[in-house]
Amino acid sequence: MSESQTFAPLSGGCITDVKGWRAAGVACGIKKNGALDLALLVSDRPASCAGVFTTNRFQAAPVLYDREAILADPRGVRAVVANSGCANACTGPEGLEDAREMARLAGRATGVDTNRVLVMSTGVIGQRLPMRSVAHGVELAAAALSADGGHAAARAIMTTDTRPKEVAARLDIEGREVTVAGMAKGAGMISPNMATLLVAVATDASVAPGALDGIIRYAADRSFNCVTVDGDMSTNDTFLLLANGAAGGREISGPQSEGYQQLRDAVTYVATELAKMVAFDGEGATKHVTVHVTGARNRAEARQVAMTVAKSPLVKTAIYGKDANWGRIICAVGYSGVEVEPEAVDMWLGDLHLVHNGRPFQVDEVRASQILAETDVAITIALGMGDADVTVWTCDLSHEYVSINANYRT
Amino acid sequence: MSESQTFAPLSGGCITDVKGWRAAGVACGIKKNGALDLALLVSDRPASCAGVFTTNRFQAAPVLYDREAILADPRGVRAVVANSGCANACTGPEGLEDAREMARLAGRATGVDTNRVLVMSTGVIGQRLPMRSVAHGVELAAAALSADGGHAAARAIMTTDTRPKEVAARLDIEGREVTVAGMAKGAGMISPNMATLLVAVATDASVAPGALDGIIRYAADRSFNCVTVDGDMSTNDTFLLLANGAAGGREISGPQSEGYQQLRDAVTYVATELAKMVAFDGEGATKHVTVHVTGARNRAEARQVAMTVAKSPLVKTAIYGKDANWGRIICAVGYSGVEVEPEAVDMWLGDLHLVHNGRPFQVDEVRASQILAETDVAITIALGMGDADVTVWTCDLSHEYVSINANYRT
Repeated sequence: MSESQTFAPLSGGCITDVKGWRAAGVACGIKKNGALDLALLVSDRPASCAGVFTTNRFQAAPVLYDREAILADPRGVRAVVANSGCANACTGPEGLEDAREMARLAGRATGVDTNRVLVMSTGVIGQRLPMRSVAHGVELAAAALSADGGHAAARAIMTTDTRPKEVAARLDIEGREVTVAGMAKGAGMISPNMATLLVAVATDASVAPGALDGIIRYAADRSFNCVTVDGDMSTNDTFLLLANGAAGGREISGPQSEGYQQLRDAVTYVATELAKMVAFDGEGATKHVTVHVTGARNRAEARQVAMTVAKSPLVKTAIYGKDANWGRIICAVGYSGVEVEPEAVDMWLGDLHLVHNGRPFQVDEVRASQILAETDVAITIALGMGDADVTVWTCDLSHEYVSINANYRT
Repeated sequence: MSESQTFAPLSGGCITDVKGWRAAGVACGIKKNGALDLALLVSDRPASCAGVFTTNRFQAAPVLYDREAILADPRGVRAVVANSGCANACTGPEGLEDAREMARLAGRATGVDTNRVLVMSTGVIGQRLPMRSVAHGVELAAAALSADGGHAAARAIMTTDTRPKEVAARLDIEGREVTVAGMAKGAGMISPNMATLLVAVATDASVAPGALDGIIRYAADRSFNCVTVDGDMSTNDTFLLLANGAAGGREISGPQSEGYQQLRDAVTYVATELAKMVAFDGEGATKHVTVHVTGARNRAEARQVAMTVAKSPLVKTAIYGKDANWGRIICAVGYSGVEVEPEAVDMWLGDLHLVHNGRPFQVDEVRASQILAETDVAITIALGMGDADVTVWTCDLSHEYVSINANYRT
């Protein structure tokens, strides 16, 4: 933790550690295997909301629905209902009606106006939501809502995830305890662009929608937009940030407000930790891979180089095979589309300096094997062109990835 | 064969079916397993030459060498020496000197001026060429040169390829028999951009360098630039087109010359068939996948959509798993970066019309399974926006791909 960090991670925390939120996760038969598949989050008072969404041209019905709902009333959100097992994507006007009905059912069950309910869905594309199961699930979830239901809700949005993803932090703003906590799901079809996966982050700070929008974009850019599993961008990526003001205190209205930067840092921390969990729980992952790019002319180019390396099937399979085939990394840097100067490029695997000025340097195969035997693998690429840098997170490409995705629907 | 096709495929043909060319393929110990690893092609007279090369910023030494040699004398090429097992990439000035020395050795062994020898290398990046083995190989190959050595040469450039790739065609230009024949290697790190892999195509037509340049660019755009295995673009991609005039007849000086279009079509045919062989011999491939995109606003957008689908790990693993998960195809169309109109998109798997106007249509799972049980799988995407179309070729993503690339150097 850096000295300037003005929040504290909250170990074992979940979204219901944020004041004023109750949650539940239930099983209602959308997934064939009987696992939890419907989550409900309810705030005891209206929350400001900002969202970032997939840039895929095929936008799932819940994405279309939420965009409109937030625009219509960015201060009035009371609940989020989410399901796994069916993405409600490529389902046309009927799918949009299903999303609306899902909100209506959740509103009725929790005594909240339909317009104040957001929806999220994840799972197979091109199938209609089984609305009878959804209706049943909403009833069950409304009855199960509790102030410690956050963990169950986080489990209920999982698909091929092997574990739930929850992060929480506490901070002090003008003498009041503020909590930021979130949950995410995602393990495949991961290559977000200005948005990602399914993520809900809540805070009990009081924040105006415009300020919240600035915070979510800053956080998304440094977290979910810096992870990739397979380079496939989903139709359903949704990241919601909700602030219900239950902690009391003055509203944070913009960047100049007391607490703005502190809250932004805490939200970015929560989002970044969730993003890393997503990358490191990538389908079939056996390795946590971190790619640092330094010395770029600007942040966009740094990210482009880092993401090209992080997405390369050849780099990912080499890491899976514990093969220090650094030529594949340099090759990916070269085809990233950024005009790098080969003779200015340095590269490290962990602390092993493999490439200096574009040429092999301390190529110590024994040491390289030791580094690749660890679960956490760091690749650092110094471009020697400027002072912008970026960090992205990914995983390796294993036999298990192929198995999971060859048999996803069966 | 279409009626307008004015050439005939030459079954079982190889590069030495072109008049005036001799070739050899030998084993000289660059590959540890004792397989053929050095190829030599020699023309009995100077040949015009055009090349297209990788756009990777890290260009291998042979690429740098050939670019210069062709510029210096585009009418004087007499020989090409190629090795597999070592890419001579990321090897700095010493690597460039090794490429020069390889040309020098081949020139001396065949009695040809060094400046008239081109070089190609493929294999592991970042290692120096074992020059003692190369010298030995060049001697062996020069002694083995023969008018039916084309098949051995094609074998000597293989790396993870499971079979050699050779295509030949015959045509008649102004009453003279002209042959076009080529060989290619490539199975992984395949995502060319204005060039590809290692490819040598020779013809005994007489062609000016400028006309040859037009022909190679036309052919590359419709062949090697339309295949992908894994989206990784190599440091070594090289496509050489050589015309030695041994068939006699007037020189083809430009598009208006008699025989230009005919020759261009024959070269495009040879290149396209080689490209398909590369895609369908993709590392670990169990399926030949053809992606047709129609109704695009222009060819570039058609290609972008087709390549995005062809590169998607989720589409490729679904095809491997014989899972008609068409939602993944539509999803990839959506994130291709082309501004498609979802409600105008149709999609077919073989002849099964799965998506109409962006929504599920004749989703017949039984028929879909039958289609996916075949080796050849065709995906057609109609964008409904214009009249440009493109076809690209790829393969599926299998457990075997991961095995090959996790253990490539061991």
